[in-house]
Amino acid sequence: MSNSLRIIPLGGLGEIGKNMMAICYQKDIIVIDCGLGFPAEDEYGVDYIIPNYKFLVENKNYIKGIILTHGHEDHIGGINHFLEAISNLTTLPTIYGTKLTIGLTECKISRKLIDRVSLKVIQTRQKINLSSFKIEFLKVCHSIADSIGLVIETPIGNIVHTGDFKFDPTPIDGIVSDYFKFAEIGEKGVLLLMSDSTNVTREGFTPSEKEVSNGLINAIGTAEGRVIVTTFASNIHRVQQIINISHKFNRKVVLLGKSMEKVTKKAIELGYLKCPENILIEESEIDNYKDNELSLLTTGSQGEPMSALTRIANDQHWIKVKKGDKIIISAVPIPGNEKMVFSTINKLFARGAEVVYESYNQLHVSGHASQEELKLMINLTKPKYFVPIHGENRHLIHHRELAKKLNIKEENIFVLNNGDILEVDKIHAEIKGKVPAEKVLVDKQGKIYLEEEVVNERRLIAEDGIIVVTVNIFKNQVLENPNIVSKGFIDTNIFSKISQSLKDRIDNFLSKNKENLNIEKDISNLIKDYITSYTGRKPIVSSIINKIDLKS
Amino acid sequence: MSNSLRIIPLGGLGEIGKNMMAICYQKDIIVIDCGLGFPAEDEYGVDYIIPNYKFLVENKNYIKGIILTHGHEDHIGGINHFLEAISNLTTLPTIYGTKLTIGLTECKISRKLIDRVSLKVIQTRQKINLSSFKIEFLKVCHSIADSIGLVIETPIGNIVHTGDFKFDPTPIDGIVSDYFKFAEIGEKGVLLLMSDSTNVTREGFTPSEKEVSNGLINAIGTAEGRVIVTTFASNIHRVQQIINISHKFNRKVVLLGKSMEKVTKKAIELGYLKCPENILIEESEIDNYKDNELSLLTTGSQGEPMSALTRIANDQHWIKVKKGDKIIISAVPIPGNEKMVFSTINKLFARGAEVVYESYNQLHVSGHASQEELKLMINLTKPKYFVPIHGENRHLIHHRELAKKLNIKEENIFVLNNGDILEVDKIHAEIKGKVPAEKVLVDKQGKIYLEEEVVNERRLIAEDGIIVVTVNIFKNQVLENPNIVSKGFIDTNIFSKISQSLKDRIDNFLSKNKENLNIEKDISNLIKDYITSYTGRKPIVSSIINKIDLKS
Repeated sequence: MSNSLRIIPLGGLGEIGKNMMAICYQKDIIVIDCGLGFPAEDEYGVDYIIPNYKFLVENKNYIKGIILTHGHEDHIGGINHFLEAISNLTTLPTIYGTKLTIGLTECKISRKLIDRVSLKVIQTRQKINLSSFKIEFLKVCHSIADSIGLVIETPIGNIVHTGDFKFDPTPIDGIVSDYFKFAEIGEKGVLLLMSDSTNVTREGFTPSEKEVSNGLINAIGTAEGRVIVTTFASNIHRVQQIINISHKFNRKVVLLGKSMEKVTKKAIELGYLKCPENILIEESEIDNYKDNELSLLTTGSQGEPMSALTRIANDQHWIKVKKGDKIIISAVPIPGNEKMVFSTINKLFARGAEVVYESYNQLHVSGHASQEELKLMINLTKPKYFVPIHGENRHLIHHRELAKKLNIKEENIFVLNNGDILEVDKIHAEIKGKVPAEKVLVDKQGKIYLEEEVVNERRLIAEDGIIVVTVNIFKNQVLENPNIVSKGFIDTNIFSKISQSLKDRIDNFLSKNKENLNIEKDISNLIKDYITSYTGRKPIVSSIINKIDLKS
Repeated sequence: MSNSLRIIPLGGLGEIGKNMMAICYQKDIIVIDCGLGFPAEDEYGVDYIIPNYKFLVENKNYIKGIILTHGHEDHIGGINHFLEAISNLTTLPTIYGTKLTIGLTECKISRKLIDRVSLKVIQTRQKINLSSFKIEFLKVCHSIADSIGLVIETPIGNIVHTGDFKFDPTPIDGIVSDYFKFAEIGEKGVLLLMSDSTNVTREGFTPSEKEVSNGLINAIGTAEGRVIVTTFASNIHRVQQIINISHKFNRKVVLLGKSMEKVTKKAIELGYLKCPENILIEESEIDNYKDNELSLLTTGSQGEPMSALTRIANDQHWIKVKKGDKIIISAVPIPGNEKMVFSTINKLFARGAEVVYESYNQLHVSGHASQEELKLMINLTKPKYFVPIHGENRHLIHHRELAKKLNIKEENIFVLNNGDILEVDKIHAEIKGKVPAEKVLVDKQGKIYLEEEVVNERRLIAEDGIIVVTVNIFKNQVLENPNIVSKGFIDTNIFSKISQSLKDRIDNFLSKNKENLNIEKDISNLIKDYITSYTGRKPIVSSIINKIDLKS
């Protein structure tokens, strides 16, 4: 057995989303995060994507614990699938996280499993022992409260895993990132740093969450009618600011949208959100207040089709937008969501609302470290080996280049792909082998697709449609003109023209191929070739050949 | 007959793309631009979109001329469809544009029509008379050479149409926008200004095209191997800069991709692009030069699937990316294209190239006016009425708010939708009625979709797939278990389970409904309901009911 550490990212490298990582030493394994990701535009009918955790399922007996760095979907959203996959274990591994993270994770786990899972709330600066690993949890700032980075002591050396972080010098809860502990472990010696690469293309420092305060005061304070604010439900510090500023301007707050209600109420229950008395009112109470006494806080900052704000924009919600409403988008579109977000904004404008958005209004700041903070993290921890994590390939490579400027040796930096096995010991590190790590596609019913074939078929049909030809054969002759139907195909008026011709061609073929055993496949090909050449298009052609047998 | 002007936008309002506008006075009509737009993500199989020009087809006899403001696809790309639609006119209306615009438009017109169309090259500051209209062409700066704005004298008053513009104080060709002429007509009196809204959310001034020069010198000058630069083929001033800087660093230039070759060669032919002698070489000559003697200039800045750069990134091009290559993206993603662009960048990084991109490297500037320039345009022209054009709803509304700050009266500003008829006379303006203006979808063979139904079917199939059930009925009984096939449906293993049950249900139904005339429809519904309830999914279910008749 190897005496090296093995670092195996299963998700989150070469992509933004579905973060999951295994750290192995001899037979001990710890798992960091278990998130989900969102499908590409042409992954039709796919609702989310989870990591391929086959390696962990095969080695489930050795998992000593699962550590969740924070409560965002891309870090906890895959947990129920994973627990199900290892549910034939007598004892499921314990899940560790801070109070809010565990609170949000609890909601993700099915009734079937919840009683079998041990969820342990940990404090920052607390240390736990998991066999070969001693793990310390360090406060970091991020766009959700209660985020942590990790110091992992191993027999080979110390690992620092930053989680998602920024160094916010003036965080809303007043608790800054744990500069001292990162520096302390740096002084003791860090074998390997794994650090968040999301914002590596941004110069300088990411602004403090507190900087949003002026933008929100300005936007809410100057509103004359209702205020409708949207942000990520999980950004509890942002929600806190919106509630405080609404209170300052004598507005009651209404929560719209399931996840906004759920997360906000959970955060209040756990003490992460402090509300002035009676500020929250129910939807049903809206009519008791004047427009300028109301702030509606809603989901939908990414233009998600089913979110409250999108339904409001489409006039599918009982809240009707009217002239005088001010809609505040306290978020920026995640790359890929621009069209949906701007489409929602356009519709809200068209209904007469004023919409304020975009960063120059100071309505949003990012939760991830920019270049100067990433440099600071490297200089505090002074690692021997460096693995940029949490980013597309371009982010990881930019982060490598940034680390090189800080005198981390190029040969000690590893840009990994999901599934790569990085073996690290005190004097040497290299990529040795690979475990499966392709995407696992999941549909809205939680069903896992084991193959891409179904999605590929959808892609093809979406392009040119599908044609179904039914041929009835009786006594080696086509019984009547083939029946041709289509969906999503443009030239339906040609079917009547080609049906007779298809019959003749098949009859001709049948008369010449009486002994052919492969006749159904051959006729299908004949039909497909004829339609493709006749139409000049490439619909999916599906043929149904019935050999009618009246003996039955 | 009304003595008002009628302004009828047919495309480009409430959207970015497919610009087209009719200006009418009594029976005279002039048409400004005839562009195409790109489909939304869920408009499957649609390749581009053109305006609905039904109003113009119905009034084709009154069209006095078509004016094209510049040679971008969203201003000229629909011209051939439009000419075809009015091709039964004895004489087609003359098309007016600057030399480059006409040169690019010529390539768009089919052989069938080209001999019947009169294309007239106009000069800036030239005036033409088209019945009731006297039109003057004014130089404006934009991301394609030879762009113009329009001053249109009418019996009611003067109209200014900016086209797409920015006020670049230091343009590459040295010819600034025609400040004087805009100011002169402002002094004489402008009844109506229609101005480009694309960049209304950007503060300040849009940087000059010349500002890109430093970024390109830095990127190309420090490259040690091959340079591969991508930009919009139509941005001829950018192409000029890339050629000049390549020459400065002793690199030959190779043009990759059809549109890059076509547009660049056209621009050279017409004198818009001046190349140092022998700088352009053919693809076949690449091997005669060292890597550091080559700049490859390619299409694909938007991650378009079939472009040269995307094919290079996917290893589907004969040019193979290698370590040492520097790839320069001299463009930014158009909203909606981010995922495709970054996916291309990630793949290029993964193949070992260095990729430089994003605006902080000074590799791109926009071609549209920012807020201070839009204010300048209003202050120069001092219009009575104002119609913001060329933008999504949010842009048009922001532009309205900006104009209000410059003391244009709110009631004199009109945020129009495509199809709105704005009637304007000397003392009054109002929206009066509407002409058809919905999208017209076109597929890759140039075939026009007259209905959205086909696209809707594709959307539904893409979500859950399609199931086809074939039932053969002979003498009022189902002949054998129904044949069930599917494409893009996930649970194919259930088919064998439900087939027998379907047969029983249909037989049962047949025995009870011997006289039913609507039997096929009823059986189809029975099948659909059963499959939907059994699977809990909503695939398209298509049933083929064959009543077998052996008399034939």
